[in-house]
Order: sequence, then C-alpha cells, then structure tokens
Amino acid sequence: MNKPILSLSTEASYLKRSVMRDLLSLATAPDILSLAGGLPASEFLPLQQYQQCLNDVLNREGSRAMQYSPQSAPLREWIAGYMRARGVDCDESQVFLTNGAQQGLTILSRLLLDPGETAVIEAATFTGIQQITAGRGARVLTVPTDLQTGVDLDALEAAFSQRPRFAVIIPDFHNPLGVSLSAEKRQRIAELAARYAVPVIEDDPYSALRFEGDQLPPIKAYDEAGYVFYLGSFSKMLAPSARLGWIVAPSELIPKIVVMRESIDLESSILTQQAVYEFVSHGLLEAHLTNFNRENRQRRDALLSALDEHVGGIASWTQPQGGLFVWVTLPEGVDTWAMFEQAVAEKVIYIPGAAFTIDGTQRNAMRLNFSNTRPELLREAVRRLADVIHTQFAFER
Amino acid sequence: MNKPILSLSTEASYLKRSVMRDLLSLATAPDILSLAGGLPASEFLPLQQYQQCLNDVLNREGSRAMQYSPQSAPLREWIAGYMRARGVDCDESQVFLTNGAQQGLTILSRLLLDPGETAVIEAATFTGIQQITAGRGARVLTVPTDLQTGVDLDALEAAFSQRPRFAVIIPDFHNPLGVSLSAEKRQRIAELAARYAVPVIEDDPYSALRFEGDQLPPIKAYDEAGYVFYLGSFSKMLAPSARLGWIVAPSELIPKIVVMRESIDLESSILTQQAVYEFVSHGLLEAHLTNFNRENRQRRDALLSALDEHVGGIASWTQPQGGLFVWVTLPEGVDTWAMFEQAVAEKVIYIPGAAFTIDGTQRNAMRLNFSNTRPELLREAVRRLADVIHTQFAFER
Repeated sequence: MNKPILSLSTEASYLKRSVMRDLLSLATAPDILSLAGGLPASEFLPLQQYQQCLNDVLNREGSRAMQYSPQSAPLREWIAGYMRARGVDCDESQVFLTNGAQQGLTILSRLLLDPGETAVIEAATFTGIQQITAGRGARVLTVPTDLQTGVDLDALEAAFSQRPRFAVIIPDFHNPLGVSLSAEKRQRIAELAARYAVPVIEDDPYSALRFEGDQLPPIKAYDEAGYVFYLGSFSKMLAPSARLGWIVAPSELIPKIVVMRESIDLESSILTQQAVYEFVSHGLLEAHLTNFNRENRQRRDALLSALDEHVGGIASWTQPQGGLFVWVTLPEGVDTWAMFEQAVAEKVIYIPGAAFTIDGTQRNAMRLNFSNTRPELLREAVRRLADVIHTQFAFER
Repeated sequence: MNKPILSLSTEASYLKRSVMRDLLSLATAPDILSLAGGLPASEFLPLQQYQQCLNDVLNREGSRAMQYSPQSAPLREWIAGYMRARGVDCDESQVFLTNGAQQGLTILSRLLLDPGETAVIEAATFTGIQQITAGRGARVLTVPTDLQTGVDLDALEAAFSQRPRFAVIIPDFHNPLGVSLSAEKRQRIAELAARYAVPVIEDDPYSALRFEGDQLPPIKAYDEAGYVFYLGSFSKMLAPSARLGWIVAPSELIPKIVVMRESIDLESSILTQQAVYEFVSHGLLEAHLTNFNRENRQRRDALLSALDEHVGGIASWTQPQGGLFVWVTLPEGVDTWAMFEQAVAEKVIYIPGAAFTIDGTQRNAMRLNFSNTRPELLREAVRRLADVIHTQFAFER
C-alpha cells in the first residue's frame, strides 16, 4: 500500500506528542515502582457500590439506560447543590455535564480562544492545560506559582492587563505542584477577573480529595461578575472510567456550550450519569471519600517521611493537604530529565518537572504521585530515587 | 449578578443551534407519535446480555475497570477482524477507539481542515456532518445524492477537482436519505480519492443494520492508496449509551489522532470498552442483530405500506434495505417546514428535509424514522401525517 502524504491542518501542527506518555511507556517492567502516574488508588475505588449502582439503574430503567438521552436532570441538580454547599451561587441551569474535566477545558478553550490569541496558564501546570492553549496555537503567558499559597497575583494581574482571552488556574492540590490557593487569593482572583474582564477557568478535579486542613470555597464562590468558569470531575473522587465531569458556567453561555459539545461527540453516557447519580444520592460519596482520603493521607505521610529520611538535606518539597501529588525541588544543576534513564535502571520512575512547562524549565524538579502506591513501596521507591539523586548530586558537585 | 458580555471565539460564531433539537423540543406531549428521532428501538436493545457483560467485566477485572487505561487491545483487534471480514485490509494498529462516530468526525475534521478551507459534503446529510464542516467555518461544497445509487460521482469529481481538504460520504442507509451506495460507486469513490489526493471520510454507523439485500464492502475496502478514513460506531448496532465508535486510519496518522483525542477528553471508558468486547467476543452481536434487524424490517414494511396506502398518489420515498430512515419527497410547493406546526397539532412529528441542508433547500421533503415506533403506531402516524399533507396539497393546488 502506498503511503500518501496527507497534508494536515494548522491545528494539527500545534499538537505535540505527550512527553508524559513517552516517559510512562519507557517504564513498563513489572518490578518498576512508578511515582509517575496520576491515578487514584485502584484498590480503594468503590467497586462493589458502583457496580450495585449500575445494576440498580439497569434494573430500574431497563433499556432506556442504553439509549441516547438528554443529560440527567437529577445529577445536574445534585451537582448544583454540591456547588452551593461549597459557596457557589448556582442552579442546575448553569451545570453542564462533560466527558471529564478535560472536555470542559476543550469546550471552553474553543468557545473563548482563537489560535494566535493570548491565554494565561501557570508556569508549571497539567499537560492537558498546555494542550488546550499552546496546543491550539495560543500565545501563552505563564505566571509563576508560589509553593505555599498558589499562583502569584502580581504576575497574574500583569498578565491580565494584556487582556488575554482566559486564564486557567488549578485551585486545590495543584497538578503538578500539590499546593492550594489561599482563601485570600481566591477572592482576589475573582476580583481581578471582573476588573480586567478576563474569564478564569478554574480547573478543580482534586478538591474533594482533601485529607487535612479546612476546605476552602472555590474561586467561583467569589465570582459576582460571572467571569469564572468552574470545572469539576468525578474521575478522581469516584472513578476515572465514569468519564464524567461538569462545567458551571454563566447560564447565558450554556446554549453555546450545548452546541459545541454536541458537535464534538453528541453526549455522555446516560447509564453512567444515572449510576453516578445513584451513587451520590445514596450518600455513598461521603463514605467513599472518608475512606479514600484516609488512605491517601497515609500514603502522603509515607512519601514525605521517606523524602525527609533520604533526601532531607538536599531537596525541598511541597506539603499537599490532599490530592495526588508532591512537587520535589532539587538543587540547581540536577537535571531530572537527564537522570530519568538512570532512574529507570534503578526501577523507579517519576515525571520530570520540565514536562509540566512549555519552555522546558523546572529541570531540577519532579512530580511524585503518592496515591497509587502502597506505603511500604513508596518508602522503597524513595530509597531508590534517593540513590539516583545522590549520584547526580555528587556528580554535579 | 451582572451579566458580562464575554466575547466569544470565531469558532463559536460558526456554531449554529441545532434546528433538529429545536423541533424535537417542540413536541414532547406524551400522545405525540414521533417519526422525528434517530434512535434504535429501545425495547430490542440487548439489555440483559449487556448488563451481564458489564458485570462479568467488573467481577473479573475489579477496580481496574474503573481506572484510567490505554485502549482495549482485544477490542481493537476484534474491530480489525470485523473490518477485514468486510474486505478492509487493516490491522489493530490502524484502529482507534472514539466516543462514538461523531467524535471521529471531529478528530478528522480538526486534523485535516482549517477554517476557510474547502470541505465536500452531500447536499442532504446528517447534521453532525454539517457541524464539523460549516460549523467550523469551512467553505462547503455540496454534491447531490441519487436516491437509488448514492452520491453523484460527476458532481463529486467536479468538487474533488477543487482540491478540498476532505469529503464526507455516508455509504449505507444514508441519514437522512435511506439510500446505499452501489458497489461500483464505492470503488469509483476510492479511485477518485486517490486520483485527486482528497481524503474521504466514510461515515458508517448503520451498515450492520442491513435487513435486506447483500452487504457491500465499505469504500475503505477499495482504498489502495490510503486516502479513505472509515468511521464505525457501536451506538446503533449495540447501544447508544456505550458511547463507543472507531476510526480506521492509515497507521502513520494514528499518533496525531492519539494526541488530538487526548487533548479533547483523554480517553473512553475502559469499562465500556471491555463490556463491548465481552459482548462481541461471545458472539452476542450476531444474535442481537438478527433479532434487531428482523424487527426493523417489520417496521420499515409497516411504514412503507402505510405510505403507499395514504400518500401513494402524491409522494415518493426511498426503499431502505436497512438502517433507520426513509426519505419522503412531496410535490414541489409543499413546505414540510411550514406544515410542521400543523403536524404537531395532529400529534405526529418528523424532521423537515431542510434541516439536513446548509442552504435550507429540500423544503418539500421529510425524514421519517421507522426504528423506534411499533408497526401499528407507525401506521397511525402515517395516517395523521397524510391528513396534514393532503391539507397542504389541496391548499397548494
């Protein structure tokens, strides 16, 4: 068969291979300890309960649960109530269900931004946020993020003064940094959005995974002017394979969101929507999260104490109060990208910090995931990692 | 709360409200007989078997079926075998799973077409195909479709000579026309694609729904040069809420498709993928389709004989050998859009032909769905519809 050279769109030329996927694919040996992923702990997902919910829906709804369907009104109402309990003044007319938070990012990026226009993202951020900005040909302004209090507001305001089309900010248990925004900053961001008329996309897949400290209202709770779009997800708080998330948007934008979503992939599975509603409306979410977060906390503790023991003298790291990730900063000169191969040889992997930047900086940092590895294996993983780091560190000195 | 006027992207300005949704939302009274939808028959969806497959997967895979996951290799292999059995020379490296065929259309449109560039579609076609061409700001060339043999090849070649970025063609049981491409035309289309170097997107959600005549190979089976992209879907042949379809593409394009999909919504549910694989690999699909298509045939027969009885003198219609739809052409001057309100008053609805065109033509045609209404109700629906048509016809004369 001849291979034609099909010429691709400009949009296709912006897309970059995911370096994270490349790195993860390098390391598939069964005895490798991976701190590289972003998965919730498989063994604590609510398997029996979710299976029961699926069966209850199919037994009750029959083949209607296999059909095309409008979005589940009860689930949208439940989400509106959940958001109100977090301080967001909204009703179900502002809630739109998506195929996970990433689809929310896609829809909002396409509604608000043309290629060549300006978007603001955090300097170190989730690769999916890079994809819906740089990966669509946006001019990207980056703002640094303080490792104790979240995104730098002076830098954010300076970026807003350039009238970008939107900014994307992760409020809780930042991916990859593990930091959460202070309450003061949340309010200030909503104010800055209104003052500069810059839409803020608040990407919040993690806030339900708090295991320490007080829950804070989302930025959206302070949004009196209607410039904040909130993205939530059931992927981390219930099950990734549910493929279900939501947008809270000003209701006048919902019709455009509906048409955009319809053009992309019509709709989300009504079976999944109803099963998730069954789960949350029977109070199973609270019980699951209590258990889940207790385990996550033990894993975070195991990771942090192992870091303290093995690299306490030369590295620093964030202190996440929830979520999945810790961000480790090594001395200048250590290159976590270059040392990845050695780490694979030592049977431990992580994601190099540079993968979370669009300019390849943060080379002396790494993201460690604590949620999907048992505590004793976390300690072993850090021991191996410390060997690699110490070799590098000695070499650099 | 103040309502800010958020300025939207150029892309958002291309998006149009779905007139089909508007029409369907007009007609929700419980006693309305709807020939307007595009749903497979709920009562013949394989509920118990699919539920068993979901449970088998969850019982066997446990919480792995709730996690993030690479695409199911067994399902991709099964699909490659299914395509080979239909005459397509392919392996699993060319198969990519999507959230239904609409997502396949989205991915390919974005990979191949920039706004302002030219795309070719059939003059009467599925609204989702309008959305990924006109709805993305493409310059759209339309080609007529013969109601016996499918798309007009002279018109298609003339359009190809303008070097469009791609053409979208529905090969079997066309939506909305109900017609299938002749075998000769399938081969010629693949040849034209190669000669003019124009990618052809073959949108085929319906071919498994054949209840009469011989199955024909898809256009892709004649694609020696690698210019044909095939889109399949489990939505109509198994369950819409599975939200699962596939692309067969040249393998060198798969990496770009992977990144594009990842940026849109990461992935499809692994639970659904495995349940669908369970279903097809246990031979349940053949049994389901045998039953399903027998019922669909009875419904088509009921619809066509009712048309013959009630509007035989003044209308003509297509003779679908499968699928979901019949296309009815009324005398010039009858306006199926204008008479919709009267049809609602008579408690029967359909989709006016103009909804399937981007220029508002086909005003004297309508699409009727036969798959989701019982035979006796189909007859009653046509009786009501005939009353409306006769009123119009008398008025026009």
